[in-house]
Amino acid sequence: MKDSYAYDRLLKRFARIATIDECASMLGWDAAAMMPAGGGAARGDQLAVLAGLAHGLMTAPEAADDLAAAEALPPGSDPWAAANLRLMRHEHTRATAVPADLVEAQARANSKCEKVWREAKSTANFALVRPHLTEVVNLVRQQASALAPALELSPYDALMDGYQRGIGASDVASIFGAYEQFLSEALPRAEERQKRQQTPVKPTGPFPVAAQETLCRRVAARIGLDFDHARLDRSAHPFSGGTPTDVRITTRYDPADFTQAIMGVIHETGHALYERGLPKGHARQPVGRAAGMAIHESQSLIVEMIACRNDEYLDWLGRALHGAFGGDPKAYQVENLGRLWRHVERGLIRVEADEMTYPAHVIMRFRLENAMVSGNLTVADLPGAWNGAINDLLGITPPDDARGCLQDIHWYDGAFGYFPSYTLGAMAAAQMMAVVARQTQGLKTAMGLGDLSPLTNWLHSNVHAQGSLMGFNELLREATGKPLDPSEFQAHIRARYLS
Amino acid sequence: MKDSYAYDRLLKRFARIATIDECASMLGWDAAAMMPAGGGAARGDQLAVLAGLAHGLMTAPEAADDLAAAEALPPGSDPWAAANLRLMRHEHTRATAVPADLVEAQARANSKCEKVWREAKSTANFALVRPHLTEVVNLVRQQASALAPALELSPYDALMDGYQRGIGASDVASIFGAYEQFLSEALPRAEERQKRQQTPVKPTGPFPVAAQETLCRRVAARIGLDFDHARLDRSAHPFSGGTPTDVRITTRYDPADFTQAIMGVIHETGHALYERGLPKGHARQPVGRAAGMAIHESQSLIVEMIACRNDEYLDWLGRALHGAFGGDPKAYQVENLGRLWRHVERGLIRVEADEMTYPAHVIMRFRLENAMVSGNLTVADLPGAWNGAINDLLGITPPDDARGCLQDIHWYDGAFGYFPSYTLGAMAAAQMMAVVARQTQGLKTAMGLGDLSPLTNWLHSNVHAQGSLMGFNELLREATGKPLDPSEFQAHIRARYLS
Repeated sequence: MKDSYAYDRLLKRFARIATIDECASMLGWDAAAMMPAGGGAARGDQLAVLAGLAHGLMTAPEAADDLAAAEALPPGSDPWAAANLRLMRHEHTRATAVPADLVEAQARANSKCEKVWREAKSTANFALVRPHLTEVVNLVRQQASALAPALELSPYDALMDGYQRGIGASDVASIFGAYEQFLSEALPRAEERQKRQQTPVKPTGPFPVAAQETLCRRVAARIGLDFDHARLDRSAHPFSGGTPTDVRITTRYDPADFTQAIMGVIHETGHALYERGLPKGHARQPVGRAAGMAIHESQSLIVEMIACRNDEYLDWLGRALHGAFGGDPKAYQVENLGRLWRHVERGLIRVEADEMTYPAHVIMRFRLENAMVSGNLTVADLPGAWNGAINDLLGITPPDDARGCLQDIHWYDGAFGYFPSYTLGAMAAAQMMAVVARQTQGLKTAMGLGDLSPLTNWLHSNVHAQGSLMGFNELLREATGKPLDPSEFQAHIRARYLS
Repeated sequence: MKDSYAYDRLLKRFARIATIDECASMLGWDAAAMMPAGGGAARGDQLAVLAGLAHGLMTAPEAADDLAAAEALPPGSDPWAAANLRLMRHEHTRATAVPADLVEAQARANSKCEKVWREAKSTANFALVRPHLTEVVNLVRQQASALAPALELSPYDALMDGYQRGIGASDVASIFGAYEQFLSEALPRAEERQKRQQTPVKPTGPFPVAAQETLCRRVAARIGLDFDHARLDRSAHPFSGGTPTDVRITTRYDPADFTQAIMGVIHETGHALYERGLPKGHARQPVGRAAGMAIHESQSLIVEMIACRNDEYLDWLGRALHGAFGGDPKAYQVENLGRLWRHVERGLIRVEADEMTYPAHVIMRFRLENAMVSGNLTVADLPGAWNGAINDLLGITPPDDARGCLQDIHWYDGAFGYFPSYTLGAMAAAQMMAVVARQTQGLKTAMGLGDLSPLTNWLHSNVHAQGSLMGFNELLREATGKPLDPSEFQAHIRARYLS
């Protein structure tokens, strides 16, 4: 069937789906940042109804008919329209490949498992959640088997594709293998070098929450967040949500230590700038969305880990912090902040890890989840495999499963294939920063004034405004001249921690 | 067609519609209390898509089929199920009687007119908005003509029915006529009496906003609002929104005067208790909803205007206020607060009016909108008719249209038939309070401790938990022994302002 209006109808259908997803995104933000506990049950129903409505629009027979018709008569030579149509097909395939009863069974099993996991984690009792995680893994394997042939990907890659298009497990395995080797030799040297340095001084509080919040807002605005289109609130775990014209970021405040609040806000501002900078002409279309979770993470990490922990920026930030909190100025000097915030340590907890050891946490999770999805690792064997893996990589052993395989929510909520995004993002960020440093003028001078615009302007043009026009490696190639080159991240780590 | 499952399918369909409406309600709260200005355009799209989805579920052919089938085989002898089915039919009739293109034209015209009204009001320039209001009235008249035969009501009553079932213009006209007569004789006497009293002293500030907010939260909780299922935030105009298990109330704070904030919170708490107390077993069904806007208003007014301005409650509140703000204790004594908050004054502005003169503002609006809907008053003649009407009722004349026919948003946003709800609510509240005073023990003693539970328990059983089982007069008859009896409100006014 040829039909020149089919693509126009698809544009409307996908915009409608995206608008429903915007409602869900706002209600998700509200649930984490605003909602009283008693609203939880009704909110679950609301989100389920919205998901059902969006799914219904995607899987309606008219959607399949219009896709076939539009593909028979492609929408002209515009590469954006061509990419959009490909992505529509891709989303449609993902939505229709998995049977509805499996989707429902997963939603139920994930929700149940996640609840039990909270108790299992707080009591360090893996046995409690084991049967629930077993069920979640069984269903994830069915999901992967359903997706794989439809997407012409391996089962694990089919899951990974749900978070980041354009890179798969075989690339990831070799990139991660190389980093493991690098780390085994570089980490002891970094630790040696660190031992010879002066011990950093922690600024002493109190740090009133109101003053922290004011400073966080100022820093986010200075990085480029426009509060006519954004809010900053509080939640148990910092995140960036909302929609491109109304971004909602959150952080948490500890009156005894401002580090978490300010670094959280800087990180989420990186995510928020990406959403704000997506191509407005393709809003609510698949091609107008962010290019994936690894690219998203590159945008938060290039700001938080690379730019804002540079001496130039720390010099400005230290003065801003001292201005906000007072106290001994020595603790806020750039040399001290550098030693404090560029500190390497073999730790058990991923979310507390420094940028050098963080990939080790991701590498072991990637290998373990890959083995679970392929059936080579049972849930019963997970705790032992976990403890062996972290010992191999970092030479440390968790005293209990709470600090081991129970620490992260991801698997217990059914998210398999997500973990690689963190380290792929960190590596992409280093590769971008190397180009930005070569291509832009006055980067360091600007950073010394708290001004990241040379960086953020480059990111806007090369990443944000590209939407989903390209997959992971293609975007990197256009922006930096080559697909992911893990030696760029190693060079960044070497320059910062070994020289 | 007889089908014993048709009613079950309708239960599901209406629950789904109600859940979509909950999403819209939350996003509406967010737009007023949280959203940055830049999110407005996207929010408009989100709400329009949700409205379209809900409308689509209501007008689907399956809904009509199931209604016919369920009516042919009614759902047993349960009066709740019978009422629910009647209300389903009623909502379906309202949703299908008006052609889709008229609904769309009204949405566009109302939105445009409301925008222009903001400028017209701020510049006191009625001519600016006149063509837009003319269009709005034209479309409202078409809407009323479409609804009237389907509902077997007069055109004006068909509009009023959209806000409050169970009472119409002919009842309202006679009730309002009686009050007009009462007022013409009682108001001068109340003014005379007031002149002989000591002039009230205004508490002097400053009243820090944080202290006001803490007190407002305490007062709302003491009245019975459970903050596990509620939030209190700020917005330009106080309102009560959200859902029955997650009520969101708002107020606004003036550091120079706490009256507006605290009275706003007490008023909205009355609305919130109603939503919280709706019958949980009928949640998300038409019969489980509030019985209408006049009944809703009775629940806020019985708390704010009747209970909380009684001497007993003011005694407690005065001490709470003095505890929060300090300063001269004389200003917080019950005698002074009574003179301050039970003060009668002929004013031009409805939202600033006292409870004795408030009905005059409603009476004239009811007459004017009735005349516009029936075609007996043109928009061009509105300003003159307005000024004549307020002069007749209160003997005062607006110096400009901003303080005249431009003051309220309702008509400019397409809401005709709403105004009577305010005064019907005030009258219903007085009638309920008379019964509560006779039927409950220890009411005054409890109020003196800031405890309204004898009142709120009665309201819970007789109003909140009744949902939409009954219409306006039927609910009043069950709760108080008679349909609306305007002499009860006159007795309340007489006791408070004339004795």
